[in-house]
Amino acid sequence: MSHGLLKGKKGIIFGALNEQSIAWKAALKAREEGAELVLTNTPLSLRLGTMDQLAEQCNALVVPADATSVEDLEGLVDKAMEHFGGQFDFVLHSVGMSPNIRKNKPYEYTNYDFFFKTLDISALSLHKVLGVLYKKDALKEWGSVVALSYIAAQRTFEGYNDMADAKSLLESIARSFGLLYGKKAHVRVNTISQSPTRTSAGSGISGMEDMFAYADALSPLGNASASDCADYIVTLFSDLTKHVTMQNLYHDGGFSSTGLNAEVVETYTKGLKKD
Amino acid sequence: MSHGLLKGKKGIIFGALNEQSIAWKAALKAREEGAELVLTNTPLSLRLGTMDQLAEQCNALVVPADATSVEDLEGLVDKAMEHFGGQFDFVLHSVGMSPNIRKNKPYEYTNYDFFFKTLDISALSLHKVLGVLYKKDALKEWGSVVALSYIAAQRTFEGYNDMADAKSLLESIARSFGLLYGKKAHVRVNTISQSPTRTSAGSGISGMEDMFAYADALSPLGNASASDCADYIVTLFSDLTKHVTMQNLYHDGGFSSTGLNAEVVETYTKGLKKD
Amino acid sequence: MSHGLLKGKKGIIFGALNEQSIAWKAALKAREEGAELVLTNTPLSLRLGTMDQLAEQCNALVVPADATSVEDLEGLVDKAMEHFGGQFDFVLHSVGMSPNIRKNKPYEYTNYDFFFKTLDISALSLHKVLGVLYKKDALKEWGSVVALSYIAAQRTFEGYNDMADAKSLLESIARSFGLLYGKKAHVRVNTISQSPTRTSAGSGISGMEDMFAYADALSPLGNASASDCADYIVTLFSDLTKHVTMQNLYHDGGFSSTGLNAEVVETYTKGLKKD
Amino acid sequence: MSHGLLKGKKGIIFGALNEQSIAWKAALKAREEGAELVLTNTPLSLRLGTMDQLAEQCNALVVPADATSVEDLEGLVDKAMEHFGGQFDFVLHSVGMSPNIRKNKPYEYTNYDFFFKTLDISALSLHKVLGVLYKKDALKEWGSVVALSYIAAQRTFEGYNDMADAKSLLESIARSFGLLYGKKAHVRVNTISQSPTRTSAGSGISGMEDMFAYADALSPLGNASASDCADYIVTLFSDLTKHVTMQNLYHDGGFSSTGLNAEVVETYTKGLKKD
Repeated sequence: MSHGLLKGKKGIIFGALNEQSIAWKAALKAREEGAELVLTNTPLSLRLGTMDQLAEQCNALVVPADATSVEDLEGLVDKAMEHFGGQFDFVLHSVGMSPNIRKNKPYEYTNYDFFFKTLDISALSLHKVLGVLYKKDALKEWGSVVALSYIAAQRTFEGYNDMADAKSLLESIARSFGLLYGKKAHVRVNTISQSPTRTSAGSGISGMEDMFAYADALSPLGNASASDCADYIVTLFSDLTKHVTMQNLYHDGGFSSTGLNAEVVETYTKGLKKD
Repeated sequence: MSHGLLKGKKGIIFGALNEQSIAWKAALKAREEGAELVLTNTPLSLRLGTMDQLAEQCNALVVPADATSVEDLEGLVDKAMEHFGGQFDFVLHSVGMSPNIRKNKPYEYTNYDFFFKTLDISALSLHKVLGVLYKKDALKEWGSVVALSYIAAQRTFEGYNDMADAKSLLESIARSFGLLYGKKAHVRVNTISQSPTRTSAGSGISGMEDMFAYADALSPLGNASASDCADYIVTLFSDLTKHVTMQNLYHDGGFSSTGLNAEVVETYTKGLKKD
Repeated sequence: MSHGLLKGKKGIIFGALNEQSIAWKAALKAREEGAELVLTNTPLSLRLGTMDQLAEQCNALVVPADATSVEDLEGLVDKAMEHFGGQFDFVLHSVGMSPNIRKNKPYEYTNYDFFFKTLDISALSLHKVLGVLYKKDALKEWGSVVALSYIAAQRTFEGYNDMADAKSLLESIARSFGLLYGKKAHVRVNTISQSPTRTSAGSGISGMEDMFAYADALSPLGNASASDCADYIVTLFSDLTKHVTMQNLYHDGGFSSTGLNAEVVETYTKGLKKD
Repeated sequence: MSHGLLKGKKGIIFGALNEQSIAWKAALKAREEGAELVLTNTPLSLRLGTMDQLAEQCNALVVPADATSVEDLEGLVDKAMEHFGGQFDFVLHSVGMSPNIRKNKPYEYTNYDFFFKTLDISALSLHKVLGVLYKKDALKEWGSVVALSYIAAQRTFEGYNDMADAKSLLESIARSFGLLYGKKAHVRVNTISQSPTRTSAGSGISGMEDMFAYADALSPLGNASASDCADYIVTLFSDLTKHVTMQNLYHDGGFSSTGLNAEVVETYTKGLKKD
C-alpha cells in the first residue's frame, strides 16, 4: 500500500546488487511511494547482479559508477541532474566491501592495502559522494542522505574484521559532513544501524549464520529484515523527519538496547552443559 | 497534505494542554493522517487548557485521567477500548512536571517530596501507562508507544534541575518495558529527545529563552519545532518503523552530535571581550 | 603492596556488609593505601553483617546511618568531620536494594511503593549524600565521590528489574550534581559500571549465576572481581584522576564494548542444537 | 611525589616532541613512578623537537621509528625487547597529524591523499603498533596500551576537520584489537579522550585558542592539562586498572557530560547583544 510519501521526490540509490540487497528493496519501496530514481553500482556489480531488472520495475535510469572514484561520481551526479531536470532530494549509500574478509585475512594479520581499500570503499566513498553533491549543489534544501551501518561500529563483533572500523569511520563522516551540509542547505545526513541481514554483502563474513540467529534471539522484536529497512529508509527520505540529522539510528528490533534476553542465557547455559 | 499514513489506526494522546503543546500538534497531525483518537489530560489541565477545542477538531473522545494514578489509567484504557471497539495501535506520552522548578528550588537544595513527584509525574507515569496497557492487552501486535524526552538525560544542562534525572529515568523505563512488551506482543517503545521547544511546559525553566537561542545556534538545522516533532511522531506510529524499539531518538536539528559550531564560538568570544 | 596513594586522605565508605562486598574490599584497599576511614551502613545491615571486624582491621570509626535519611546523613557527616578534624577527601556510595526483586515482583507487575523505595535507596540516596556534603562544605577541593552502577542502566538485562531504572537515575544524579559540585569546589563525581559481582546484593537477582557466567564468557578479560573494583576505586580517589568527572566508567573486562565473542556464539549454537 | 606505581614496569612512549607534549609529560611521570622507558618518534620529529633532553632526564633509550611503517615498528619493538631483556608492560600511542589541516584544506574540499595520510598516521598506526606487539608477543600478560583521542570522535567540532574521523577510527581500532589482545594475553587497550590541550599538535587547528577557552568555560573543572593527562595515563598503566579495556575514557573536566553551563550561555547571550 502506497502513501505517496515520496511523491515528487527524486534520488539516487547506490548498491542494489540483487533481490536480497537492502538497496534493491529500498528502490522498490521508494518507487512505490512515488519517487523517481537513478540507480547506480560499479560496472562489475552491474555485470554480476541483476539491476537492469530492478531499473525496469522502477522505471529508473542506470548509471554505472565506482563510488571510490570522484570522477565517476561527478559523472553520475551530472547525469542524474540532467535526468531529473535539476536538483534532487535524496541519496541512499549502501556500499561496503572488505578485501580482508574476502581473502580470509584475520584482523590481527590484516593486509594494510586491503584495509585502506575497505575504508575507501565502505567509508570514504560516502565523503566522496557528499563532496560531489555539495560542490555541485545537487541536493535541494532539506535533502536527505542515508548510509547503512552496523553496530560493530560501537561494539566489537568477532569476525566482522575491519568492516567494524570502516563503519565507525562511515558514521563519523556522516556527522562531520552533516554539520557542514546542514548549515549550507539544511541537508540532513544519517546512518541506519541495521540488524545483520541475509544479503550478498553479509554472506562473506565468517560465522554469519550463527551470528544472525544469535542476534535474532537477543532482539526482542527479532532481526529487522531488508524490507523493514526499506520502509525505514523511506521515512528518512520523507518530509516527516526534516530535523533528524547527524544521527546513527538503530533499526534492529531492540538489539542495541538489550543486554540480556532470558532465553538467550538459557540456551547458552544449555550449550555449556553439553560439553 | 495527508498521506493516510495512520489510516485505520487508533490511539491515545496524553498531554495536549494548548496550541503550543507538542501533543496538540501531534493529535492534529495524527488525525490528518487518518487516525482515530482519544485525548487525555489531568482534570486540572483540562480546566486550564483548551483541549475541548482540539477534541472537536479531531473528532476525539476526551477522557480525563491523572497519569500517576493507576486507577485513572485503567479507566482511561477501558474507555478507549470501548470507544475504539477493542485493541488500539499507539500512545503518545507527553507528560512532565517538576514542582522543584515551579517553586524555584535549585537542584542542590531540592525538596525530596517534590523530587519524587517530578519522578512520578514525568517518568513513573510511563511505567504505569505501559503496565495498564500490558495487563489489559490493550495494544495490537506491533503497536507503538512514544514518550518525549530531552538531551538533559545524557548531559547536564544547568537549570534543568531534577527534570534531567526524570528524563533519564523515563528513557530507562522505555527500554526496560520495551524489552518485555516487545517479546509479548511486538509492541515497540521509544523516546524522542526533542529540541528545547517553546511550550507551556518549558516556560517555567529559568533562562529558557537564552538556552533556546543557544541551542538553535548550535544546531546545524536549528531547533526542531513542535510541528516538526508531530511529523516525526507520526512516522513512529506508522507501519514503516516497526523494528525501531528501545531507542532514544534525537530530533534536534543535529544538536546532540555537534560539539562546536564556528558561529557559536565566535559569538561567545565576542561576549567575552565585552567584559 | 601499598603505594601510599591515599596517604593523608580521609573518607567515608558506605555499604560494606560483609567480606564479599565491594565496599569491604575498597575499605581494606583504601586503608592499605594510607587512608583514614569512617565506615557506615544501616543499623540493620550492621546487625546482619560483620562490619565491626572490618572497622577493626581498618582502624575506622563506625557510624550507623540510613542513606535515605537526610537527618542520619547529617549526623554521619558531622561525626566524620569531627573524627577527621575537618573537611575530608572522598566518599564511596555502594548502596542499592530493590524490594521488588526481594519479593519477586516482576517488572511488569511492579509494586509502585516498592519501586519508589528502590529509587530512594539506590539512587536518591546519592543525591542526599551529595546534598549534605555540599551544604556542610564537607569535602576538600578536588574531593572525589564514587558510586557503583551497572550496565543495565544503558541496556536492558531481563531479571534486573527496577534496579536498571535506579542505576540510570543514579548515573544521572552523579552528572547533575557533579556539574554543581565541580563548579563550587572542584569536587568530582563519577560512577563505576562494574561487572556482575558475587556479593550479597547481587544474590537476590534471579538467574544471577547464569548471567554471571555469560558475562564472564563474553568479556575478553573475564568479569572484574570485587577486589579489582577496589583497586580501581582507589585510583579514582587519588590525585591522579583529578579531571575525571561526571563519567560512568565501565570496569567490566571489556563486556560493554563487546558485541560478540566467537566462543559465546559457539556455545549458544550448541545449546540451540541440543533442543 | 612518587608512589612507585610503575615500579618494575617497562614501556614504549610514542610522540614526545617537546615539553608541551602530553607524551613528554607522561614519560616524565612514568619515570617518576618507577618505569623504564624507550622513547620513539619519527626521525623528522626527533630533529625538530628536543627529545634527547627528555631521554636523558628519563634515562631512556631513543629509537627512531615512523609509526606508519610496519618495518620501523618491528625494529623498534625488537630493540625495546632487547633493551628491556624481554617482554614489556605498556605503550603510549600519542601520534596524530592531518596534512589537510596543515595545508588549510577545509573538510568539504578535502584532498583524499591527505585524508588517507591522516588516517594512516593518526589511526592505522595504532593497528600497526598493536599488530607488531601481538605477533612478537611483546607485551606481558595484563599489559596496557593507551592511545590519545578527542571528543570530536563523537560530536562534530567545526574546524577539527578529518582528525575527527581519524579519532573515530582510532577508537574503533582500540576496541577491535582490544578484544583480540585481551583474549590472547589479557592485554588491555584504551583511548583517553583528552581536553583540548595547548601542544604543538593542536596548534595547527584553526580557531584553536577560542575553542580552548570555550571548552575551558564549559567544563565544570576546566580543561585538563597535559600534566593532568600524564597522571591519568599512569593509572592506566598501573595494576590498579587491570579490568578496564576497550574503553574511551573522557579526561576533560566534565566537558563531555555538560550540555550547558550557565556562565557560557550568559557570555554567549552577551555576545549576541553586542551585534
